[in-house]
Amino acid sequence: MRLVTYRRSIESEARLGAIVDGLVADIALLGRAAGVELPHRMLDFIDLGPTAIPAVTAMLADAAKAWPIGVAVPLTSVTLLAPIPRPRKNIFGIGLNYIDHVAESAAALDTSPDLPKQPVIFSKPPTTVIGPNDPVRLNANITRQLDWEVELAAIIGSGAKAVTRENALSHVFGYSLIVDMSARDCRRAGQWIYSKGQDSYAPMGPCIVTADEIPDPQTLDLWLTVNGVEKQRSNTSHMLFKVDELIADLSQGISLEPGDIIATGTPEGVGAGRTPQEWLGAGDMIVATVEGIGQLRVPVVPA
Amino acid sequence: MRLVTYRRSIESEARLGAIVDGLVADIALLGRAAGVELPHRMLDFIDLGPTAIPAVTAMLADAAKAWPIGVAVPLTSVTLLAPIPRPRKNIFGIGLNYIDHVAESAAALDTSPDLPKQPVIFSKPPTTVIGPNDPVRLNANITRQLDWEVELAAIIGSGAKAVTRENALSHVFGYSLIVDMSARDCRRAGQWIYSKGQDSYAPMGPCIVTADEIPDPQTLDLWLTVNGVEKQRSNTSHMLFKVDELIADLSQGISLEPGDIIATGTPEGVGAGRTPQEWLGAGDMIVATVEGIGQLRVPVVPA
Repeated sequence: MRLVTYRRSIESEARLGAIVDGLVADIALLGRAAGVELPHRMLDFIDLGPTAIPAVTAMLADAAKAWPIGVAVPLTSVTLLAPIPRPRKNIFGIGLNYIDHVAESAAALDTSPDLPKQPVIFSKPPTTVIGPNDPVRLNANITRQLDWEVELAAIIGSGAKAVTRENALSHVFGYSLIVDMSARDCRRAGQWIYSKGQDSYAPMGPCIVTADEIPDPQTLDLWLTVNGVEKQRSNTSHMLFKVDELIADLSQGISLEPGDIIATGTPEGVGAGRTPQEWLGAGDMIVATVEGIGQLRVPVVPA
Repeated sequence: MRLVTYRRSIESEARLGAIVDGLVADIALLGRAAGVELPHRMLDFIDLGPTAIPAVTAMLADAAKAWPIGVAVPLTSVTLLAPIPRPRKNIFGIGLNYIDHVAESAAALDTSPDLPKQPVIFSKPPTTVIGPNDPVRLNANITRQLDWEVELAAIIGSGAKAVTRENALSHVFGYSLIVDMSARDCRRAGQWIYSKGQDSYAPMGPCIVTADEIPDPQTLDLWLTVNGVEKQRSNTSHMLFKVDELIADLSQGISLEPGDIIATGTPEGVGAGRTPQEWLGAGDMIVATVEGIGQLRVPVVPA
């Protein structure tokens, strides 16, 4: 399933939907039509556990033969929000997780040229999350070095505590796309949260693709353009620590919970690593894509 | 008010209470007795906004003249949890915020001897939070260098976005105590979240003292003992960035929200800075105190 959080009108509440053939099917209304109680929030759906995915997939396929009245509306008539508009904790971010990005970062920033021996972790507060077409807000009082980072995001489906690499992917609910916006001049004593944690610094979406449809997350192309010019292009096969290793490693010390989000790191091609360096300005348009998940448009506006 | 989250028995739900004369008065039951609907969760109470504090303070004073049946029970008969057992996002932690701690950290760890020019920020996930007498779990597979850090915590009461230093303290709901447990050998590429973010690494409590009772948070003694031996003793007057500066600075880029927690940094005397260095082991007992707030006992047990 391609799950979204959407709003039918500016006055409507945010609801959980699934994209089917250019329509958004409302999951709670789908359930009501079938006499089954289903949630209208993404996190509540994730909390149902992995058995809900095949059950609702089957309900959708059945309903698509003849949509019950009111369940499905055209995708073009709704507004998409971030699939998880308000995470329950900070997003886990992974730094320096593509080999060529380690090199460009060491050349341009204050990080080591050595490949990390363990995943490098930071966090982004829930207030960073914005949805498709929402603007990133550039605060010129704080930063002159706003940069882009396209990333695959893994969404945890079932609690993971000290799991093995072999079992790790069974804890994934699905995958999404996050742009890990980074104000390079806001790092402080090596800590990245103020650099990566400002309001609007985590554009996310357009959907979560459930893990059954992405059996191997290490085969996906991902790329990013700024004003139509390609800046990043790579494949998740080039990750230093794969998604299963990230989950296994994190979960040794930090319990992962349903709805947790891991932004798995960015490939080479960020603005800081270019010669000359390039920074985003108000009016720029970022378009980020992960194969099989979708595309996110992120305008940059003044804060 | 001295607000707590408490449980009357092992089968009871966690509820919001206030400590009055050795009793815990249940806030929701106090309200019911007065015909006023009051919440039974700390975060819901914080969400009521600052006007709730004088109103409930007055209700408590009135009720204490003759407690309505069932509203107040002896403190000794309940179990205290962390005042906010489950924060809505990661705790904001402040590093290197006491001058003598900057020096000991630079001598022992990988930080700079220069005083930070801006607050150094990191985060601790909600899964770090434990309550009074709950044990910190030492995972010997991950760390051999578990360390203590006693800290004053500020709890945000009303949303703060780009506030001035002059107005910053008006956004504080109250103050508590956090022990910022730190596995020194779990820092990664300079990032602290795995060092400070493991399960159980944020003992918090025993209460939140509302801000009206602590007009100046920069005058409080704080100290910590391990197995009865004093390791840290300082006063919040020695903070490099005061609470109002921390809130003003953070809020320039990161919106602060009701219920947000800022652990304001630790003074000198941590284990890493001692000669020889000292690390916690299973069986050790930490006792941390902040003047005017209270004392927290934290046993260390194997994970």
